[in-house]
Amino acid sequence: MIPSPVTADVQHLFSKIVQHDESISPMHLDLPNETHDTISLAYGDADPALFPVDALIAAVDSMLTGNLDISLNYAPAYAGLVALVQARMARQNVPLARNEVLLANGSSQILSLLPQILCNPGDVIIVEGPSFLGAVETFFNCGLTIETVPVRDDGLDLDILESTLARLATQGIRAKFIYTIPTFQNPTGSLMPLANRQRLVALAAQYGVIIIEDDAYGDLHFENPIPLKLIAIDPTWVLYVGTFSKILAPGVRMAWACGPAEIIKRLNRFKTEGSNGPFMTRLVAQVSADGWLDQHIAILNAHYAQKCQAMLDTIAQTFPSDVRYNRPLGGFFVYVYLPNDLPVSRLLPAAIANGVSFLPGTTCYADGQGTHEIRLAFSFQSQEKVVEGIRRLGATMHQLRQA
Amino acid sequence: MIPSPVTADVQHLFSKIVQHDESISPMHLDLPNETHDTISLAYGDADPALFPVDALIAAVDSMLTGNLDISLNYAPAYAGLVALVQARMARQNVPLARNEVLLANGSSQILSLLPQILCNPGDVIIVEGPSFLGAVETFFNCGLTIETVPVRDDGLDLDILESTLARLATQGIRAKFIYTIPTFQNPTGSLMPLANRQRLVALAAQYGVIIIEDDAYGDLHFENPIPLKLIAIDPTWVLYVGTFSKILAPGVRMAWACGPAEIIKRLNRFKTEGSNGPFMTRLVAQVSADGWLDQHIAILNAHYAQKCQAMLDTIAQTFPSDVRYNRPLGGFFVYVYLPNDLPVSRLLPAAIANGVSFLPGTTCYADGQGTHEIRLAFSFQSQEKVVEGIRRLGATMHQLRQA
Repeated sequence: MIPSPVTADVQHLFSKIVQHDESISPMHLDLPNETHDTISLAYGDADPALFPVDALIAAVDSMLTGNLDISLNYAPAYAGLVALVQARMARQNVPLARNEVLLANGSSQILSLLPQILCNPGDVIIVEGPSFLGAVETFFNCGLTIETVPVRDDGLDLDILESTLARLATQGIRAKFIYTIPTFQNPTGSLMPLANRQRLVALAAQYGVIIIEDDAYGDLHFENPIPLKLIAIDPTWVLYVGTFSKILAPGVRMAWACGPAEIIKRLNRFKTEGSNGPFMTRLVAQVSADGWLDQHIAILNAHYAQKCQAMLDTIAQTFPSDVRYNRPLGGFFVYVYLPNDLPVSRLLPAAIANGVSFLPGTTCYADGQGTHEIRLAFSFQSQEKVVEGIRRLGATMHQLRQA
Repeated sequence: MIPSPVTADVQHLFSKIVQHDESISPMHLDLPNETHDTISLAYGDADPALFPVDALIAAVDSMLTGNLDISLNYAPAYAGLVALVQARMARQNVPLARNEVLLANGSSQILSLLPQILCNPGDVIIVEGPSFLGAVETFFNCGLTIETVPVRDDGLDLDILESTLARLATQGIRAKFIYTIPTFQNPTGSLMPLANRQRLVALAAQYGVIIIEDDAYGDLHFENPIPLKLIAIDPTWVLYVGTFSKILAPGVRMAWACGPAEIIKRLNRFKTEGSNGPFMTRLVAQVSADGWLDQHIAILNAHYAQKCQAMLDTIAQTFPSDVRYNRPLGGFFVYVYLPNDLPVSRLLPAAIANGVSFLPGTTCYADGQGTHEIRLAFSFQSQEKVVEGIRRLGATMHQLRQA
């Protein structure tokens, strides 16, 4: 198309909310170029070797042969998938009515919708620091004021949360929501114990603030079962977000929100593409039926536990002894706290030169923290590459100290 | 979940735009209950007998076996599908740069996004009457002021459009967009000739109003080729919306918008689920490659032309002679103008009692018109049922006159 002199006039036509959307988030980062041989431990992608390809092909085959008019025509999301989500949640002490569940195209869609339905520009929200970079960036881009509360080895620091809520209250401000990942947090891998969960939901109820419980990693536990979900403790003040991305495959783009029907109703209304398509909802339900999904999750957990252990063992062998890190009991990530002399700004270029990369902690905070923190994903690379990547990273740290 | 006394408080938390979203559109209609034996000619669904099931199964198989890490993992929409859209549009005189194309989950998603990025509540838009009920309802629900301009056998009435634009201009109002389906319009089936298309885009440019060209039926022509698309005549003032729903299958939920890069950029930003998933974009591209889609469209057109002709022949044989209707050259619909003594309110209950249903014209207007108009879809039912449905409807009309 040839640019026309009148095109600029189009600007005039946009709605108010669109006219000031040009900000760049503080998390934005231009990573140095990686080469083909770089082992990236940066991204929390699922392990492609574990995708259930045969099961998916068989499900498509049986679905299209048996129900072709409803899988391929105009149709609402398959009710059987909602029922499957209800059954899974009920087994975890979260009984749900039909109007308390919403299917969506990945958790990210739900996180994008939340500011639209809950917030006006300038509203205050509370976010863990560090947190899931996609969520932080989404909230920032909506013009929200982000209060950061630190994450410890046992999750969100509740003393600081309480003092933050109290301070806001004295200013006449009620935060619109608290965004938290209580189970195998991204990026720290931390797990919040039951007592803390109980205190967290009590604080939310006391101050009248909705909790957004992002449970992307909730099924991925290597050892013991997990404490009650926040929504199981208090369904009134918690909106829960679950996903098939980590337990089936991210590419199917299937997640769910559940919680207060009044919130679910409005998420539905603002979900611009309507219900999730009949094809994908049937495919996910078909492949997950008859206990298959739980068997598959057990396979995933055995596999991810092994890669996590390999990463931890190699870290113990190769990193300088003053590098601190967590030992996750599930999820996708090991989080590393670097010594003062090894900031990310120094470590990252040297690491990439040595053929390994990671996610800088600074991308996980809305406020510039994380200069001495890095996230290492054991999820995506093969165990062999996880081990080799950590060796390269450990060698880089020693090199930098000898330099 | 047990409703809690505090739940009501949640209302307090919603954003301003969400707090007044409880209106019911004037198009809302409770249809009488149909039985299992009712032949519905109401809905413009695709014919399930024409879904390319074998081709889709083969495409899934080859896609998952060959590219499993990128089809099933986190990944952007498949660039090859955008390239395929660009190539198809270029062959129809619409050359497009990459940043002038957006993939979406069905045209309906694009139509839902338009008010968000282009309009503030109360803004004026211009819509054909009758029009696609989903679009009219979406625009109404966003609190827009809808100016209805009638559709004739050759499309939008341009004299009335021009006087509407002029009247608005004297009131200091510039409409935000004109929503039109110039090719095999839904519901009238009308086709706008080239000269009218040229005048329409000239009016849009003169008054500085974006045209939304919904081209859902643009490939479904029974006979001659179709006049130039509006966007081919003037790319500056037209945003084009295309879809795979009618030419492949609605269930894949795949559509595209193309036009001014500034608009595409903002549609992208407000599309809450991010890019369309890698799985579906690869699947659609895979099945559509190597000229397969054009061969498939030729099969569809031969088939739909036959069912359309069967409907028209049966109407000629069985409807009272003073019932007027169009003779579409493509698309999915025959539109019928009823005589004064046979309003929809009288015809519909009697028709359903006789085992046939249709879409009342009133559902296609924002302003209560259409009391003597009905839409008959020949797309969904088999040819045998189309013929039987029209026979029942004709018999109903004669019955009502004899009563």
